Amino acid sequence: MSAAGSYPADVLERFAAALLEAVGAPPGNAALTAEALVDADIEGLASHGLMQLPNYLERIERGSVDPAAEGEIVVDKGARLTLDAGNGLGQVTAERACDIAIARAAEHGVAIVAVRNAFHFGAAGRFARKIALAGKIGIVMANTRPMLPAPGGAEAVVGNNPLAIAVPTGGEPIVLDLAMSAGALGKIRLAMNKGESIPEGWAQTGEGVPTRDAAEAIKGVLLPAAGAKGFGLALMVDLLAGGLSAGGVGSDVQPLYGDSSRPYGSANLVMAIEIEGLRPVADYETVAAGFADRIRHSKPAPGAAPIRVPGDRAAEARKRFDGNCALAAETLQALRKQARRLGVAIPDALGD
Amino acid sequence: MSAAGSYPADVLERFAAALLEAVGAPPGNAALTAEALVDADIEGLASHGLMQLPNYLERIERGSVDPAAEGEIVVDKGARLTLDAGNGLGQVTAERACDIAIARAAEHGVAIVAVRNAFHFGAAGRFARKIALAGKIGIVMANTRPMLPAPGGAEAVVGNNPLAIAVPTGGEPIVLDLAMSAGALGKIRLAMNKGESIPEGWAQTGEGVPTRDAAEAIKGVLLPAAGAKGFGLALMVDLLAGGLSAGGVGSDVQPLYGDSSRPYGSANLVMAIEIEGLRPVADYETVAAGFADRIRHSKPAPGAAPIRVPGDRAAEARKRFDGNCALAAETLQALRKQARRLGVAIPDALGD
Repeated sequence: MSAAGSYPADVLERFAAALLEAVGAPPGNAALTAEALVDADIEGLASHGLMQLPNYLERIERGSVDPAAEGEIVVDKGARLTLDAGNGLGQVTAERACDIAIARAAEHGVAIVAVRNAFHFGAAGRFARKIALAGKIGIVMANTRPMLPAPGGAEAVVGNNPLAIAVPTGGEPIVLDLAMSAGALGKIRLAMNKGESIPEGWAQTGEGVPTRDAAEAIKGVLLPAAGAKGFGLALMVDLLAGGLSAGGVGSDVQPLYGDSSRPYGSANLVMAIEIEGLRPVADYETVAAGFADRIRHSKPAPGAAPIRVPGDRAAEARKRFDGNCALAAETLQALRKQARRLGVAIPDALGD
Repeated sequence: MSAAGSYPADVLERFAAALLEAVGAPPGNAALTAEALVDADIEGLASHGLMQLPNYLERIERGSVDPAAEGEIVVDKGARLTLDAGNGLGQVTAERACDIAIARAAEHGVAIVAVRNAFHFGAAGRFARKIALAGKIGIVMANTRPMLPAPGGAEAVVGNNPLAIAVPTGGEPIVLDLAMSAGALGKIRLAMNKGESIPEGWAQTGEGVPTRDAAEAIKGVLLPAAGAKGFGLALMVDLLAGGLSAGGVGSDVQPLYGDSSRPYGSANLVMAIEIEGLRPVADYETVAAGFADRIRHSKPAPGAAPIRVPGDRAAEARKRFDGNCALAAETLQALRKQARRLGVAIPDALGD
């Protein structure tokens, strides 16, 4: 990765939206997706940010993502619904699933939206946080193509299946967002490019032999976080999201960077739990905020970084945000290339 | 631990129930608790089995557990309820929470029972499995006294907070049951007794220094599984179970083996999700069973044990069960001692 530059977020957002519109996305869907991507970059989650956009554009052009789809409710049981995402942009259909879950939780006390035929939605935490900002507890998960073996296995059988849980505090929600592998694929790629080794327990070769060689790891399989625990949670995300939505599980889900003409076929589960009624939401928020503060101020280990609770790092990034967003040079270059190809004007602020 | 003996499970169950009745438990609550404890021993989960009974008896006698309590519904919002367990036997009040969740999920599609003032309920998986055997998805969690520090912390701030998820397959459910520490406290105690060291990443001294010394670990703190991931999940169990029930979170929960006159003060969350309606439950079960089989038959790593999915080990133990149950000599000795103290007859099959 060459050095990152810093660019006005609003310019990046309009530029990303223009690129999406150039391949046929309606303005509303383009704007929402662009905002979600730039938001991930602002939060420091580059892997869910604008670096995804070229793949999205290619998939729209190849027909595996339908930029006009907003998801169709195909089952409605009040507190439980199935949304067929119709291979729409994931940021659009997951946002819709959240809106439905929030409204139905207000009505029924708890609501589940199972989503099938979904494309990549970016960071699960974004959607859980949205539900928490509405004063409810949000739980969001998605399945990916198989990336992790079972304990004792040599072959990837379950996805890296992100799970996010967010609770309201009155201020910034507590937002947990975890994938089920011990180490992130992005960090392994980075180690490979730098010729560095990876920590023990992160990967196996395709033959099932543990490896600390990043290149071997890329050809092999990631290992689940905490062995049977991460594996078991990944399996349950598959069986909750894919299972309840009657969508894909396991190898039904396609690689994100695979055949771009083939639908991704992921499934999501979005749950909202109303707090009010069980207890006043303000009481809940006081307890959650107080508990988080108690943890932040707990006794530190010698020489350790400040103690954080889940979501603090993203919240700090949002707090530091001054209108400019860091972007890797490669990412901007790739976007400029797409713009030239699609005849989209490159804003002056983004150079040429 | 001296060698375990093997004893008729029905005799053990009646004996355990008689001990509970001797300290005032009504016959129904005594029988249910005894059955749950022996069932854990049959499944090979000795830490949730009869070895817990002496502590239960002492707590009943000291007044911190009310053996007659069955839990009182204090909030009823249809799909969401709060059960005040009234410090009843955990196996009794969690069973009741499951029954309510199953019935309400059938009515509302999804149901949540938040439980406060709860005592130890044994294995969370037992209750999630019960819900799955009723054809629904079961999610069960509980908080414990703080046992794990935050990443970078030296002080325990969140519990080891078990989380269980079970899904129906038509046959034996898939049952995931995990606690949030990297290693089990029981295994660390065992290592201490044997003078063995423990794996890296399991524990820290009270000063926040990593240790592989089992005795230091017992005096220090356990570490969360997969660092921030296990910690974050533990925090969320506290905020879901303790938070939604308006019960205890963090250090509100007391040590299981602490002051036996002080209520344990745990909280549970029991959720049941109806599958039927979203899709035929038989279809769901076919997908879940097929996916589990696909995983069991996936390519093995060289020299590894057979590949299992969560719940397989307990299911195998139940299959092997021939009416006799293995029990550590210390556990039986402790029960005999209680029997002599309470004037309960020791069955011939259990020696004297």
